[in-house]
Amino acid sequence: MSQFWSAVVHGLTPYVPGEQPKVSNLVKLNTNESPYPPSPTVLEAIREELGSDAARLRLYPDPNGDALKATIARRFGLAAGQVFLGNGSDEVLAHAFQALLKHDQPILFPDITYSFYPVYCGLYGVEFRTVPLDERFAMRVEDYCVANGGIIFPNPNAPTGRLLPLEAVERIVAANPDSVVLVDEAYVDFGGESAAALVPRYPNLLVVHTLSKSRSLAGMRVGFALGDARLIEALERVKNSFNSYPLDRLAQCAAVAALEDEAWFDTCRNQVMATRARLDSALAELGFEVLPSAANFVFARHPHRDGAELAAALRERKVLVRHFRLPRIDQFLRITIGTDADSEALLSALREILAGA
Amino acid sequence: MSQFWSAVVHGLTPYVPGEQPKVSNLVKLNTNESPYPPSPTVLEAIREELGSDAARLRLYPDPNGDALKATIARRFGLAAGQVFLGNGSDEVLAHAFQALLKHDQPILFPDITYSFYPVYCGLYGVEFRTVPLDERFAMRVEDYCVANGGIIFPNPNAPTGRLLPLEAVERIVAANPDSVVLVDEAYVDFGGESAAALVPRYPNLLVVHTLSKSRSLAGMRVGFALGDARLIEALERVKNSFNSYPLDRLAQCAAVAALEDEAWFDTCRNQVMATRARLDSALAELGFEVLPSAANFVFARHPHRDGAELAAALRERKVLVRHFRLPRIDQFLRITIGTDADSEALLSALREILAGA
Repeated sequence: MSQFWSAVVHGLTPYVPGEQPKVSNLVKLNTNESPYPPSPTVLEAIREELGSDAARLRLYPDPNGDALKATIARRFGLAAGQVFLGNGSDEVLAHAFQALLKHDQPILFPDITYSFYPVYCGLYGVEFRTVPLDERFAMRVEDYCVANGGIIFPNPNAPTGRLLPLEAVERIVAANPDSVVLVDEAYVDFGGESAAALVPRYPNLLVVHTLSKSRSLAGMRVGFALGDARLIEALERVKNSFNSYPLDRLAQCAAVAALEDEAWFDTCRNQVMATRARLDSALAELGFEVLPSAANFVFARHPHRDGAELAAALRERKVLVRHFRLPRIDQFLRITIGTDADSEALLSALREILAGA
Repeated sequence: MSQFWSAVVHGLTPYVPGEQPKVSNLVKLNTNESPYPPSPTVLEAIREELGSDAARLRLYPDPNGDALKATIARRFGLAAGQVFLGNGSDEVLAHAFQALLKHDQPILFPDITYSFYPVYCGLYGVEFRTVPLDERFAMRVEDYCVANGGIIFPNPNAPTGRLLPLEAVERIVAANPDSVVLVDEAYVDFGGESAAALVPRYPNLLVVHTLSKSRSLAGMRVGFALGDARLIEALERVKNSFNSYPLDRLAQCAAVAALEDEAWFDTCRNQVMATRARLDSALAELGFEVLPSAANFVFARHPHRDGAELAAALRERKVLVRHFRLPRIDQFLRITIGTDADSEALLSALREILAGA
C-alpha cells in the first residue's frame, strides 16, 4: 500500500498464471502449451526477418499488423477490418472488457471459468454476475437469455474442457442482440467448431483466438479477435490509446508463418486429440472421473484422493499439473495433454501415488 | 459509433504514430529510430533461443522477466524489485497513468510534449493541466512547484529535444514529495544525465526508459521503469491484472543482450551525437533556427518557409520527417538523426526546395 497508488490499484487482486519453472527436468502439464514445436516455416520466417545483422529490428514494426490481419482474414473468410490483433489473447480480452463489456448492467460469465475474467472486471470497474454451471459443469443456454451488459465465456470452457455446441452458442448470440457476446475460443481447435462462421451474421459477436495453444507459439504472444467492423473499431481505438505497437516484428512474421501451415497445424492437433483419448481411458482405469474435454487438457478428480494432495504428490515426482483452490472444483486436477511419453510419466507417477498410503 | 461501445470509447482521440512506410526506398527520419543495427550479440542471443527448431517458442516466456530485470538492475545499481518491464515504454507509461497518476487533483505536463500523454488521460479518466514552456521551449522548475496529482515530462522533451539539467529535475522531484514525478527518459542517452541515480533517495520518482532508440530495438518492443519498490508494485499489480506475459521470449533475450553490450551502445550513440552536431550547423547555414537538442532528433524551423509545406516537399523527395499541426510548433520539423548519408540526402533535398519558388 502506498499514498501514490491510485484507487483502482488498492482494490486489485491480480491474476496468477501457472508456474513457469526455470528448470527443465519437469513434465510440464500445467499451462496448456503444445507439446510440439511450431511449424518449421516459423523458424524460416524469423530467420529471414533477422537477416544477417538483425538490422530491421532497429525499425518499429507495422503498428497495424496488416500482413498478419490479411492472413487471418483469408483463413476465416472475413475482411481485414473484422480482425483485431493483440499481445496474446489476454491483451485482446483486456481491451474488450474496457471497450465493449463496460455498460450499465452487469456482464455474465460462468461461475467456473477462466479466472482472469473477474480480474479484468476489477481493473476496469465492470460489474459482473456469475452464472452457475449445471452439476455436470455444462452451460445452460437459457441462463444467458436474461438482461445483461454483455456475456463472455470460453468455448470449450476452462478449466473444465466442456464444449458448448455451435448451435447453442448461436442461440445465446441471437437471444442477446443488444449485448456483446464474447466467445473465447483459445481451445476450440482441439475438438470444437468455431463461432467465427457466425461473425458476418451477428454484429454483437466477438470471437477471440490465440496462437499459444494449437499453433505452438505461447512464447511469442499473439492473439486476435474476429467480429463486426464496429466492434473491431472500438478495440482499435482503445489499443491506439494504450500502445501503438504491441506486436513486435518477429511475433508478426512468426504468426503469419504459423497460420499458413495448415498441414502442420492439423498434424499437431490430431496428435493431441489422439493422446487425449488414450489418457482419458487410462485415467478412468485408475478410478478418475474425467469430464468430457474438447480442449488440450482434461479435468479429472479421484473419488478417494484429495485434489491438492494429488497435485503436490505429482509435483514431488516432477510432474506439474494445475490445481485451483476454488469452490466446486478444488478436488479436480487440470492436466495439459502433452506427448504420449508425458502421459506415461504422469500415469506412472499417479500409479505410484495411488498405491501408496 | 455503436451501441456496443463503452462510454470511454466514444470519448477517445487515439494517438497517431509516425508513418511506418511499407516501401524501403525512403530516407526515414520521422520516428526517431536508430540508424544503426542492434549489437551483434542480439542476433546471437535470438539464434540461441530459437535453437534448431524453435521448440522453445511453444512455451510461455517468463512472465516476470527475471533475467532482464536483473540485467537492468545491475546496470543502474538498483535492486530487481526497483525495475518494471513493459511492451515498449508506451505500455509502461499506460500502466503508470492508471496505477500512479490517477488521483483527485489534475496532473501536470508541458503544453508541448509527447502527444500520447493526453491520450492516456482520456483512456483512464485522468484530469490534467498543461504548463506552458517558456518562449525558448524550456521547462521552468517553479511552474511545477504547485499543487498537483502527479507530474510527467520527457527529458529531453519531445518533440523539442530540450534538456532539463539533472539538478532541475531533482528540484521538481524534491518539491513534490506527495506526488509521483515520472521522468520519461526515452532520449536521455543522447546527451542527458539520467535521473535513475536519484531513485534510491526519492520514493516518488519513476524513471522510464526504452530500448527503441539508443539500443536499436524499436522492432522488439521493450521498455522499463525504475523506481521505489512500492511504485513498482503498483505497476506490477496493474500489469498482472492486464496481461501476464507482455514480453515474448525473443524480446526478453534480445533486450538482455543489447543492454550488456555497452561498447556497441556507446559507439552508436556517440555517432548519433556527432552527426547531430554536423546537421545542426548545416541546417543553421541553410537559415534554419535549430533548438539545442540532447535527443536523437532536432527540432527546427525556417523563418520564411511553412513547416507543413516543407514536410510535404521533403516527402515528395522521399525524405520523411515529422510535422505536428499543433499550436506553437506548427512551423517546426522534427528530424531524426540518421547516418551522415541520411543527413546529406536531407540537406540536398532542402537545398533544392529552398532554391525553388
